[in-house]
Amino acid sequence: MDEDKVMVIFQPSGQRGEVPKGVNIIEASRLLGVDIEALCGEKKVCGKCIVRIEEGHFEKYGITSAADHVSPWNEEEEKFINAERRAKGFRLGCMAELHDDVLIFVPEESRAGKQVVSKAARDIHIEHNPAVRLYYVEVNAPTFEEPLGDFERICRGLEREYGITDLTIDIFTLRQVPEALRDGNWAVTVSVWNEKEVIRVRPGKVENGYGLAIDVGTTTVAGYFCNLNTMEVLDTVSMMNPQCKYGEDVMARITYHMTTPDGLKRMSDDIIEGVNELIDKAIAGTYPPKKKKKKKKGEEGPVEYVEVPEEGKTYLRLTREDVEDITIGFNTAMHHIFLSLNPEYVGLAPFPPAIHHSMDIKARDLNIKINPSSYLFVLPIEAGFVGADNVGVLLAEEPYKHDENQLIIDIGTNGELVLGNRHKLISSSCATGPALEGAQLAFGMRAAPGAIERIEIDPETKDVNYKVIGRDTWRKYSEPEEMGAKGICGSGILDVLAELYRSGVILKSGVFNKKALKDHPRFRKNPDTKLFEFILAWAEESSIDKDIVITQKDVRQIQLAKGALYAGCKLMVQRMGLEKVDTVKIAGAFGTHVDREKALIMGLFPDCKIEMIQGVGNAAGDGCRAALLNVKKRVEANWCSRNVEYIELTVEKNFQQEFMEAMQMPHMTDKFPHLDGIVADDVLNQ
Amino acid sequence: MDEDKVMVIFQPSGQRGEVPKGVNIIEASRLLGVDIEALCGEKKVCGKCIVRIEEGHFEKYGITSAADHVSPWNEEEEKFINAERRAKGFRLGCMAELHDDVLIFVPEESRAGKQVVSKAARDIHIEHNPAVRLYYVEVNAPTFEEPLGDFERICRGLEREYGITDLTIDIFTLRQVPEALRDGNWAVTVSVWNEKEVIRVRPGKVENGYGLAIDVGTTTVAGYFCNLNTMEVLDTVSMMNPQCKYGEDVMARITYHMTTPDGLKRMSDDIIEGVNELIDKAIAGTYPPKKKKKKKKGEEGPVEYVEVPEEGKTYLRLTREDVEDITIGFNTAMHHIFLSLNPEYVGLAPFPPAIHHSMDIKARDLNIKINPSSYLFVLPIEAGFVGADNVGVLLAEEPYKHDENQLIIDIGTNGELVLGNRHKLISSSCATGPALEGAQLAFGMRAAPGAIERIEIDPETKDVNYKVIGRDTWRKYSEPEEMGAKGICGSGILDVLAELYRSGVILKSGVFNKKALKDHPRFRKNPDTKLFEFILAWAEESSIDKDIVITQKDVRQIQLAKGALYAGCKLMVQRMGLEKVDTVKIAGAFGTHVDREKALIMGLFPDCKIEMIQGVGNAAGDGCRAALLNVKKRVEANWCSRNVEYIELTVEKNFQQEFMEAMQMPHMTDKFPHLDGIVADDVLNQ
Repeated sequence: MDEDKVMVIFQPSGQRGEVPKGVNIIEASRLLGVDIEALCGEKKVCGKCIVRIEEGHFEKYGITSAADHVSPWNEEEEKFINAERRAKGFRLGCMAELHDDVLIFVPEESRAGKQVVSKAARDIHIEHNPAVRLYYVEVNAPTFEEPLGDFERICRGLEREYGITDLTIDIFTLRQVPEALRDGNWAVTVSVWNEKEVIRVRPGKVENGYGLAIDVGTTTVAGYFCNLNTMEVLDTVSMMNPQCKYGEDVMARITYHMTTPDGLKRMSDDIIEGVNELIDKAIAGTYPPKKKKKKKKGEEGPVEYVEVPEEGKTYLRLTREDVEDITIGFNTAMHHIFLSLNPEYVGLAPFPPAIHHSMDIKARDLNIKINPSSYLFVLPIEAGFVGADNVGVLLAEEPYKHDENQLIIDIGTNGELVLGNRHKLISSSCATGPALEGAQLAFGMRAAPGAIERIEIDPETKDVNYKVIGRDTWRKYSEPEEMGAKGICGSGILDVLAELYRSGVILKSGVFNKKALKDHPRFRKNPDTKLFEFILAWAEESSIDKDIVITQKDVRQIQLAKGALYAGCKLMVQRMGLEKVDTVKIAGAFGTHVDREKALIMGLFPDCKIEMIQGVGNAAGDGCRAALLNVKKRVEANWCSRNVEYIELTVEKNFQQEFMEAMQMPHMTDKFPHLDGIVADDVLNQ
Repeated sequence: MDEDKVMVIFQPSGQRGEVPKGVNIIEASRLLGVDIEALCGEKKVCGKCIVRIEEGHFEKYGITSAADHVSPWNEEEEKFINAERRAKGFRLGCMAELHDDVLIFVPEESRAGKQVVSKAARDIHIEHNPAVRLYYVEVNAPTFEEPLGDFERICRGLEREYGITDLTIDIFTLRQVPEALRDGNWAVTVSVWNEKEVIRVRPGKVENGYGLAIDVGTTTVAGYFCNLNTMEVLDTVSMMNPQCKYGEDVMARITYHMTTPDGLKRMSDDIIEGVNELIDKAIAGTYPPKKKKKKKKGEEGPVEYVEVPEEGKTYLRLTREDVEDITIGFNTAMHHIFLSLNPEYVGLAPFPPAIHHSMDIKARDLNIKINPSSYLFVLPIEAGFVGADNVGVLLAEEPYKHDENQLIIDIGTNGELVLGNRHKLISSSCATGPALEGAQLAFGMRAAPGAIERIEIDPETKDVNYKVIGRDTWRKYSEPEEMGAKGICGSGILDVLAELYRSGVILKSGVFNKKALKDHPRFRKNPDTKLFEFILAWAEESSIDKDIVITQKDVRQIQLAKGALYAGCKLMVQRMGLEKVDTVKIAGAFGTHVDREKALIMGLFPDCKIEMIQGVGNAAGDGCRAALLNVKKRVEANWCSRNVEYIELTVEKNFQQEFMEAMQMPHMTDKFPHLDGIVADDVLNQ
């Protein structure tokens, strides 16, 4: 074995391999493809990456003790690992460096779960005008009298039949032309991009072309696989953003780039590979499902699979080459990382991106595996962190075509806001942080099985009833051990805070109502962290054998997020000289799942009639889809991105004031009279 | 060792390696990078690839005899190898397949020599208007008030300073932008291609850009390395076309593609690699020469080199990335092979190419290693075998701008003809074959040291005086063993034939004048080939220890070539309705070296005043250079290629008749009265 390498085995997955001596455990897990939560991007502040160094031994190498096979204990680890757990061999993955062979156990709480992504395509109106169109053309065979080149022969046919002139052809496509013409007996179907360039030539007549609209979020990636001719959405495919292992939010990833020599390349390669997987998923949906072929008695050999087509259903059986167009949108940081553009400056005031304008980039230049001559249309970005995803939202919602004032809020890991109407549009971003998505909290997690997503707290008894993803039955109606709770996800966060407030567990200022909670079994001061915490689920109800709690610090995190969002919205409304907005649209998965009433209780955004609050789903993705199917939307996108006035909120003079005020819970005494008394208590508590 | 491989060692080069069992010796030589002549492309007709199987042994593997380590003797080999040589172990490289380890000796006559290439740049007038221009621009640093993207910031500067609008940027260049702006303290030099696309951004002010104009011939590749700003030719670089090992002429290479599974890829990869080497050569010329660093007494270690700059000379020290534009021209087959386009159909009537039009192709898409965002401008091709090289000739000579009728003859391995004036231009190609370049003759070779290039035969004694490349002193003034003659090269061929005729060795019909040569020591019937032959150089004067002869068959080959050329010219003159042409221009290396008087004696082209015959050197390359430095020439190129009327000579009804007549030597009795009698003799001989 190489002396500069160490052997690592991760349990319970069993993944193993050699890694360079001296890397930390998080680094080793990435190299071996093991998912460990690293929400803070190795800034050593989240404490999510706890693992246990096992006292096992590798018989193969005759090693019997792993005691000093990792770097010594670091004081910073004490913040997250108490003496008892330390004695059991627990360490922080981002701290412990590997000096020799070792077996590492990754507890369930530290495993990066597979998120439940729900980004279905909405039914929005789109005019049919795709960038890639197919044309069937029949030509004459060459003769001495007409010894025209194959390509010129096709051009002459396209001009005669469809009036298209001045075409060029991609060299990769030109290589197909001589065979296609002869195989098709001088009749071919030509894919033309933007009436400019021939990007595919196939023998005979082909009816349909296909494209993919991709929305790359910080956490999830969604794709709409569309028939470019019929505009039908064949499939909606999605996946985790594989960059999550480098940090949960955009700043963590920018930090990863700045602190790791080939960090940008790694993150870029990962998302490119991810997009290629997404394409494969979309393609796979055009084949019948498969099942294992039964073996005859005594028969040996490898497992074989047979297709099991559904009766009466026809399958398109497409290949990667049948994807002939892609539109793709991101926030500014994801945009830069995807394109291997240095993201450093978009993370520093005044946040200038490398480019605003949309780009047409050959798929092959990005190593995207589709029809090799095809382009990706990269949506333009606005300013600061307001990226192409927000342009996508605008394309889908078209506030610039309406008289009413719309406030569009896209709550992802980064909050993006647009406000305005046909006369004026302004945008800004606010650092909500990942708290509203469940990250950075003691038990925050992504929307995966076991995540608490709905909650109710009895104002009298302060008892908690809740529901987890993956199980329809609420706690009240279940045996404790059936719940398998693991943490709290984004859509649950808002419920938790609103219920904590409504039930009087927390006060207007956000601090725990110690008076009301005195001696309550769910309320305690954690001896390790010294933080007050409220127990949402008892250890017996969890799959991680620990009480799932919300801490005073967690409440503060959520308050910071909602304060940033509210203050942002309010300052934008002021900027536009408005009293209030006509419509509030909430985009993103958050918008789909959020309880409108609780959002108002929380004071998530300025007052508005509850019926005028709309969830608009993955509007960014819908905008990408509009740009895929209607080339005019691409022009509109560039217009949008340059005509939305960007406001940097943090430099507005009222920002700090507004932000501080917005962190408080709103007065809701009209709706919840019992809260009246609590306001007074609050003063006493502080 | 792998059982499916055999070990081969080639002598005298000593190159060695494992190759798949069963490949023939030519194949093995290619795999190991050994150059063996294979003029016919393994059609087994040229007999150039004779090698000797050595009875050596590989001690390492304990092998003591190589007797049956190759495939059995093939009857076809008898045509080229007599019984005596067969007994010595001589075989044809294209026949003998390797069954086991073997040592192979490659005789000098079979080695592909390094050709003397002479393609200097001529002084032609070119208007300065390059496709790639450099612009220096200073911009403001970004602020919250002007948070414009880096690229948009540059665009705004370019519009303000130079009025350039609507620019796009290549993704590979965009990646340089953030650093370039900051390194240059917000001042950069931008390379703009065709006022459309930004292809390079560098910090600070840069004065000059560079480009390369490349002419890919069947046998040689020449490049002009130019300063795009001053139009100065910095260097002329050239090399053998590395595809020569696949066959000497275009048909041999097309055959190689059709008979070898990855033949096209191999040939394409080779010429791409060749062009990259040419680029390296051009770059290398911008550094001072190096010499070995002297070691101190007793000092050890690897050899080191030190630069030895010439006094007072400054060196540009350019890199590959400093090459920002390339223009490139070829004949149709070379064009297709370079671009990996199936060349099969351009070899079959009616010879339709895949494309006529010029192409702008990203260098990286062809694996050409220059500035990664830069383009190659591929000159358009005409028809049949009349390719972009002919377009290059037209661009350089501009017959379409003159009233007089010009006949432009580009004699390479394939003859390309253009005739006309500002009102009309016609073109055609004629299968001169490689005979005029010295191939396919018993002792034909490329223009390399040892090649007979000039000859004189005494009409009385029929004694021969000659000169070889690499030695200034003629035979008459040398000791026999000083000559080192090896064969006859292209420019010598014409001399030989003209002299054979002028001296009465051959008759008007081309047959040997047996009556005059009776009992002459230089004239004999070869007992092996049964062909009459005339000895040009005795074995003692040669470096290959053999008499160098010209055979009756050789004379026929040359007659066929000159007949095709003459008939082609004549038919074109007829087509244009002309009596005679005003000017004859001869392009290519052949044109530079040819003796105009002897060309007239031979009847190479229609009668014309001798002073109106001009050698125009590598006009194809000059045309490429014009297109490099003046973008209008690119438009002109496409106009040319579509407005030159192509005539397929072989289908003209008089072609066979004209061709037969043109094969004869012309009546030159006005100039050489003594030839009068020979014409009568000729009749007796036949």
